[in-house]
Amino acid sequence: MCGFIGIVDEAGVAGQLSTGLQALQHRGQDSCGIFTYDGAHFPGHRGLGLVRDVFDRPVVERLQGKAGLGHVRYPTQGKGVLADSQPFFERRPGVIMAHNGNVTNYDELERGLAARSIHLVSRCDVEPILCIFADEVMNRRRVNHTADDVAAALRDTVRLVKGAYSVVFVMQVDGQPTLVAFRDPHGIRPLVMGRRGDAWCVTSESVSLDALGYSLVGELEAGEVGFFRAGQEPVRRMLEQREHTPCVFEAIYFSRPDSVERGETVYERRLSLGRRLAGEFASRGFSADRVIPVPDTSRPAAIAFAEELNLPCREGFIKNRYSGRTFIMGSQAGRESALRLKLNLIRSEFEGQRVVVIDDSIVRGSTIRRLLDLVWSQGPKEVHFAIHAPPVLNPCFYGIDMSTEAELAAPGYVGDAARVGGLSLEDQRAMEDRWAKDLGVDSLTFLSVDGLNSVFPGRRCAACFDGVYPMSVSEEHRLAIIRDRTACG
Amino acid sequence: MCGFIGIVDEAGVAGQLSTGLQALQHRGQDSCGIFTYDGAHFPGHRGLGLVRDVFDRPVVERLQGKAGLGHVRYPTQGKGVLADSQPFFERRPGVIMAHNGNVTNYDELERGLAARSIHLVSRCDVEPILCIFADEVMNRRRVNHTADDVAAALRDTVRLVKGAYSVVFVMQVDGQPTLVAFRDPHGIRPLVMGRRGDAWCVTSESVSLDALGYSLVGELEAGEVGFFRAGQEPVRRMLEQREHTPCVFEAIYFSRPDSVERGETVYERRLSLGRRLAGEFASRGFSADRVIPVPDTSRPAAIAFAEELNLPCREGFIKNRYSGRTFIMGSQAGRESALRLKLNLIRSEFEGQRVVVIDDSIVRGSTIRRLLDLVWSQGPKEVHFAIHAPPVLNPCFYGIDMSTEAELAAPGYVGDAARVGGLSLEDQRAMEDRWAKDLGVDSLTFLSVDGLNSVFPGRRCAACFDGVYPMSVSEEHRLAIIRDRTACG
Amino acid sequence: MCGFIGIVDEAGVAGQLSTGLQALQHRGQDSCGIFTYDGAHFPGHRGLGLVRDVFDRPVVERLQGKAGLGHVRYPTQGKGVLADSQPFFERRPGVIMAHNGNVTNYDELERGLAARSIHLVSRCDVEPILCIFADEVMNRRRVNHTADDVAAALRDTVRLVKGAYSVVFVMQVDGQPTLVAFRDPHGIRPLVMGRRGDAWCVTSESVSLDALGYSLVGELEAGEVGFFRAGQEPVRRMLEQREHTPCVFEAIYFSRPDSVERGETVYERRLSLGRRLAGEFASRGFSADRVIPVPDTSRPAAIAFAEELNLPCREGFIKNRYSGRTFIMGSQAGRESALRLKLNLIRSEFEGQRVVVIDDSIVRGSTIRRLLDLVWSQGPKEVHFAIHAPPVLNPCFYGIDMSTEAELAAPGYVGDAARVGGLSLEDQRAMEDRWAKDLGVDSLTFLSVDGLNSVFPGRRCAACFDGVYPMSVSEEHRLAIIRDRTACG
Amino acid sequence: MCGFIGIVDEAGVAGQLSTGLQALQHRGQDSCGIFTYDGAHFPGHRGLGLVRDVFDRPVVERLQGKAGLGHVRYPTQGKGVLADSQPFFERRPGVIMAHNGNVTNYDELERGLAARSIHLVSRCDVEPILCIFADEVMNRRRVNHTADDVAAALRDTVRLVKGAYSVVFVMQVDGQPTLVAFRDPHGIRPLVMGRRGDAWCVTSESVSLDALGYSLVGELEAGEVGFFRAGQEPVRRMLEQREHTPCVFEAIYFSRPDSVERGETVYERRLSLGRRLAGEFASRGFSADRVIPVPDTSRPAAIAFAEELNLPCREGFIKNRYSGRTFIMGSQAGRESALRLKLNLIRSEFEGQRVVVIDDSIVRGSTIRRLLDLVWSQGPKEVHFAIHAPPVLNPCFYGIDMSTEAELAAPGYVGDAARVGGLSLEDQRAMEDRWAKDLGVDSLTFLSVDGLNSVFPGRRCAACFDGVYPMSVSEEHRLAIIRDRTACG
Repeated sequence: MCGFIGIVDEAGVAGQLSTGLQALQHRGQDSCGIFTYDGAHFPGHRGLGLVRDVFDRPVVERLQGKAGLGHVRYPTQGKGVLADSQPFFERRPGVIMAHNGNVTNYDELERGLAARSIHLVSRCDVEPILCIFADEVMNRRRVNHTADDVAAALRDTVRLVKGAYSVVFVMQVDGQPTLVAFRDPHGIRPLVMGRRGDAWCVTSESVSLDALGYSLVGELEAGEVGFFRAGQEPVRRMLEQREHTPCVFEAIYFSRPDSVERGETVYERRLSLGRRLAGEFASRGFSADRVIPVPDTSRPAAIAFAEELNLPCREGFIKNRYSGRTFIMGSQAGRESALRLKLNLIRSEFEGQRVVVIDDSIVRGSTIRRLLDLVWSQGPKEVHFAIHAPPVLNPCFYGIDMSTEAELAAPGYVGDAARVGGLSLEDQRAMEDRWAKDLGVDSLTFLSVDGLNSVFPGRRCAACFDGVYPMSVSEEHRLAIIRDRTACG
Repeated sequence: MCGFIGIVDEAGVAGQLSTGLQALQHRGQDSCGIFTYDGAHFPGHRGLGLVRDVFDRPVVERLQGKAGLGHVRYPTQGKGVLADSQPFFERRPGVIMAHNGNVTNYDELERGLAARSIHLVSRCDVEPILCIFADEVMNRRRVNHTADDVAAALRDTVRLVKGAYSVVFVMQVDGQPTLVAFRDPHGIRPLVMGRRGDAWCVTSESVSLDALGYSLVGELEAGEVGFFRAGQEPVRRMLEQREHTPCVFEAIYFSRPDSVERGETVYERRLSLGRRLAGEFASRGFSADRVIPVPDTSRPAAIAFAEELNLPCREGFIKNRYSGRTFIMGSQAGRESALRLKLNLIRSEFEGQRVVVIDDSIVRGSTIRRLLDLVWSQGPKEVHFAIHAPPVLNPCFYGIDMSTEAELAAPGYVGDAARVGGLSLEDQRAMEDRWAKDLGVDSLTFLSVDGLNSVFPGRRCAACFDGVYPMSVSEEHRLAIIRDRTACG
Repeated sequence: MCGFIGIVDEAGVAGQLSTGLQALQHRGQDSCGIFTYDGAHFPGHRGLGLVRDVFDRPVVERLQGKAGLGHVRYPTQGKGVLADSQPFFERRPGVIMAHNGNVTNYDELERGLAARSIHLVSRCDVEPILCIFADEVMNRRRVNHTADDVAAALRDTVRLVKGAYSVVFVMQVDGQPTLVAFRDPHGIRPLVMGRRGDAWCVTSESVSLDALGYSLVGELEAGEVGFFRAGQEPVRRMLEQREHTPCVFEAIYFSRPDSVERGETVYERRLSLGRRLAGEFASRGFSADRVIPVPDTSRPAAIAFAEELNLPCREGFIKNRYSGRTFIMGSQAGRESALRLKLNLIRSEFEGQRVVVIDDSIVRGSTIRRLLDLVWSQGPKEVHFAIHAPPVLNPCFYGIDMSTEAELAAPGYVGDAARVGGLSLEDQRAMEDRWAKDLGVDSLTFLSVDGLNSVFPGRRCAACFDGVYPMSVSEEHRLAIIRDRTACG
Repeated sequence: MCGFIGIVDEAGVAGQLSTGLQALQHRGQDSCGIFTYDGAHFPGHRGLGLVRDVFDRPVVERLQGKAGLGHVRYPTQGKGVLADSQPFFERRPGVIMAHNGNVTNYDELERGLAARSIHLVSRCDVEPILCIFADEVMNRRRVNHTADDVAAALRDTVRLVKGAYSVVFVMQVDGQPTLVAFRDPHGIRPLVMGRRGDAWCVTSESVSLDALGYSLVGELEAGEVGFFRAGQEPVRRMLEQREHTPCVFEAIYFSRPDSVERGETVYERRLSLGRRLAGEFASRGFSADRVIPVPDTSRPAAIAFAEELNLPCREGFIKNRYSGRTFIMGSQAGRESALRLKLNLIRSEFEGQRVVVIDDSIVRGSTIRRLLDLVWSQGPKEVHFAIHAPPVLNPCFYGIDMSTEAELAAPGYVGDAARVGGLSLEDQRAMEDRWAKDLGVDSLTFLSVDGLNSVFPGRRCAACFDGVYPMSVSEEHRLAIIRDRTACG
């Protein structure tokens, strides 16, 4: 996933970037970086680990400048390799860039750049975007780039780069240090804008704005670019617009609940998911004595689920935030110990009860099986399992770490049901019954695709659920993803 | 606070100790240590930081032995000094020891030991306990110590050592490596026992037992010692019994909710606290639209509070687990930013609502004031504030980090009301009104001392609330605590 | 100073580069880096500290490729900032580059690049060289660069870049991964070539070749470029030739004694310096009982000095290689302690003797004064001090860390003597007498400029001694050097 | 080996100890530690690595007290385990202790202590010494220990502890913080005393005194104890005296040349060794053109050797102080590269010459063989090899890391010659001829045992050369040493 933040502020930006990144830390804990621009130089620092450990006062104070970028990385590969961590810098014409997303034609772009004698130093998605843009803008005009030049170069860039990407960069535009942000034509990955007095901030989630006292002023549209300068209204241009289909999985699972998405907090969306899921659960004729979320993501959905059915919502699972590896002999005992170290149970909430456990999703399916073993060991009368999202039937090529169908648990229970546009409700319920039996629970209910759609206004990318990909993905990329290459963004 | 764990198991103990300590990590994150005993040697390792970082496989594998101890430290002082971290070792007669608690006559003990030419290397409470015991047991018999010798030596030790302490140690007793545990005569700090097959475990909280697959078999009584050997029933002896008054603050605030205390989980106790608090809140004529816990401790109380009053319980605060320091200029903006980075708000849960915010306690009172500023900024109609414990009126000398009256916020609002045995209900309500006005909230309600007592069966140490200390504390110790010395235990 | 190494070898280069860098470690201990080229990618790693600590087996194994570069840095500023450490990478056309030297028109180059919208990310000298070259070569032809293209681009680069620089880089030339090396038109900084079977190595000093089993095959000429490919003879072209004036201070002080310079080891040169110095010392009518070098640099000169005068050469000073900071109160005692911790004395070699102490140079003059105090405390009958180089009268702008006249000790003793082309012998002897008196020694003798010239065949840059700079240095650069900017190269 | 330092000074000792330890760092680089005594507490710090890295200003400032100890460790085993590093502390009666040496009846002592129920926490030799002393002194009198008590307890300790040990400790004696030092009855390991004004220092080598400005006032005698207090003359008592036989290998190899041993610097001893060796070399009819030391230890001997024969002494080998591991494939090439990285050669000093290479000793014999290969590759006419010590024929049990005969190279060439009291000169020369042939050199000459004795006045322990051990060593200990246990001291 990864998270980014860009700020222009006459009062300096490095301290703000460091604080804002801490609010995005849930999007990536492997490495982090900040680069600033003081009108002449681009001081920067990157390091492995958490923002609070990498950025101390002396480092922050060295990063002078009134515009800058920060990034936190969640690597699906290359963990611990500093060379792949963002932001990236290109000397020509002097640009620092960071992004969140996944480029689906990386190999093609790399070949195209190599044909122009431009070579990449990392395996990170943002580098080809940076190189194509930089080359295009320099080809247009060697010096004194205007917003028109930049927009034109970005138009060419966006035409070449396939995939999902929200990008921020800083360079000299129209003679001023400028923060620029743009999104892919479908606007799949998030990007919000905030202001505080004369200062502007563009970031992955609105929680950074909250931490810094900026007001949320909205999003860039899909395929749009914005130019931000302190004390001026942003200049916005359309690069290439297709249907805006933001990723629905962000709100279901990845974003912080206090982030705002299209005018509503993720928390509120999750309440709605829970409410709708309750209706579907009840309509199947199931009932229970109490509702128990698997913490922390599914808690809001569980609260609403319980309110809707007028049931108590209880904390039956206690999460340990300090758990690491266990060195206990015997794989079975060891695995159980490792799970229970992470997630302990409150027997009194399960014993003799008909419980409905709420979770956000089932991707690979192995952990949930061991979790249910632990639930049964607490002596419940019935165990129901309800998921506040539809079953994940398809891989994601746009930045969520579930890239191959072979890794997914749900497809194994679908059988020969038609999946076009998602399972039919009838097929989904049949699949749930098969899976419930296999898991040994009294029932399993996923939210229906209709249910999901009712919660999220407008079009979304829900390809992982319904198989409708906003763009085609080359076979080469599918294989590359399965083989080894992965985005860091 | 600190946490400890001791295990005897023929299959080896270091891996288990390392896992068990991770379950106790909430009790201390500054340093950690493990020592084992292989019948001849006492290999050990201690380090600064989290258990998962200090103990890797090679270190764990070096710690051979069928009996051993682990400890995590929460330093109220001396942070980052390895010399004060537990377990401690004494060569005569070969003992490793760890504890949780606070010795209230440390200076007196140190002088007494010095008079016997025994000198301490640390400022840690467990060291005088270890030295007194070791000297007493060696004075009785130089070799081949029996359980009777040990018990007799502990009797003398317990007579000398004032304060609250739960202690575990390992030494050769009756010719066998033996895990020994004992509690001060009032049993103030927690200590539970578990078994798994032939193995035994003694630890600060039952969550360690859960993580390791041990069954909880109960507690040692106040003033009791237990001798544990693999495959044998524990030998238990009374050292010196006074009224058993376990610390009530453990369950209110410090323990993990999934820990069991006197037959019930801490979670259940907190449900009861919330239910009772709801009754008191309603009986004062207050009402609200929704209940919002300050995460994470007060969530169970908030759930029960809401159920009791048939109100929704919502997650209006979102906690960021990655926040560190901020480097933003301007103290006011900086402090606000730092708080909001840690605890963000969901506007939709506050705006236009009559909210009752639930928290576990108010000790120093400064953070809560800034938090309420943030709450008001979300546009609520009314803000009520309810605390699922009575006001903290008195310092703790038994291991909770609130040692001087001057640091406490509550006494400033009490006026000349009599505090003997806690405030009268009438005085408490009057004090709450004064404080509510000062905080600018519509109401402030603490749980009454009667309410607290109704939740916790039997006698407790609730001195911080009611001023009834199980033992007297010397003036010297009060001053020492205020001045500089502090327990690590 | 800094040191570099480049290798092309079909058998892989990273392991060799890591070993070769360890042989150059005396040229810089602050940071180090290695980049390789596998025909498509440029994997690299840089870190703060010694080569043996930064490069372990996993890191070396990740650096695949048959051509590559390594660098060790001695920072005159920016110590501990990783962003300034070499090698550097430029994506267009895919070049890794490292150097040793000092660019004397950095600010001008930076402005010129900025005028082409090319911006630097570091304060390191090699970056503008890299950027100018890369831009020139891409302006000539966008793809499929030939050796002619590269040489032509380098010709333009060398015309623009003023100063002293020996540079190595790796890129695709004539369709093959190629190691390229070139020197400034005066060839001031060292660069030697070696071969082992089909493999080629270009490096700062021949000691790297020895450590790797390569045979020394010579140097590039001043202003020459060489293209190196495994199994082929190097292609060499002249870029721009002026008089070859290699830095004489390298051999006097900086290089390892086992390095070969123009067919002779530095060790042999130092023997010659010592022999010549002995003649000058004796011709002034001085005599002594024994010769004592200040270790380690001046030992060969001292040996030859002693042989020439038929005196014993003894180790009166013992160097401690582990000394760090002292925390002793009192500045006078503390400083003395710190010096004596580094350099202890053998009383028996001084007491009652007429000693002549040999050192390589006096730059700033403060340490030598304290050293002589220590010498006198050993009870010598006479103390003579002889330096196997002429007095340093002028700053160096070409990479030796003695950049401002104000820092130099010698000019203060020159008075109004003419310095053109170095002091006259008469003026030098007069100056030595003044300085000897000030130092409180029986005599002080520097090698004469004639003596120096007799040892080094051909023309040299000896500007620090004789004030004859091979190129003019702009006033802007003189100021910049005094102010703050500094080379890392 | 290891090194120690103890200081009493009213002005505080931690800063001095840290500086003094840096002067002893050649005696051990694995770990280091300092403990002080402020009259009531014993603050301390230990860490892995060099003194300059472990002790920074904040750490030193925390170590308050007017008496204290420091130690550097050279582990023959247990490298990197902090638990074994010194100084050690014993609470009863409050003692910090450090030592250098090797206890030859460790297992017996450990059993004896265990029989008194005293158990060790480390595998370090100093711990049983500390425990026995502490127990003895407490058995005499529980409080207010006098110098008589301490001396009496040490007498018993020295009777029990076999081996070589120089020990320093700090405790309250006669009511004052006192630095105490004692040596085993043969005084095998070094221990010198220094004073500066009112302050006293006891340390392994006089170089610490030089670094701190103390004057050397002599040594403790074998079997003697000294009590040191600031401003008072030391109180000295004999514990148990046998023949004083200090280790001769210290001066040959281990000590710094600037250390003083029995009134003469080690440097002077090495001059004498070289002079004597020259005589023996010449008397065998050998001659050469130049003398070349293997740096750094043998340089003084080489200087004197050369002077004696009126030959030039030259630096044919150049040592690289930064070399670490090499990752070059192929064991033969790799090993050669690793050696040449450490020790490079100056061809001009060897080519066409008859060289005599001087080294301090041959212990295991493998490195020297590869070194001679390198020498021959430089084209010498003849290679002679001369060692300024006799052949090492016997293991050392007293602290030098050459513990088993099987590891030694020399015995393999002795054949059936009688070794009692060392080889006869005739046998030695015959053995040298065999070995020279095997090494492929023109001659090999060791110093004769007579030659050695002529340089070192008085009796010495030269058991490694002559097989005359001052004390017997139990078979148990011989086996233990071969098996696994090893001293750290």
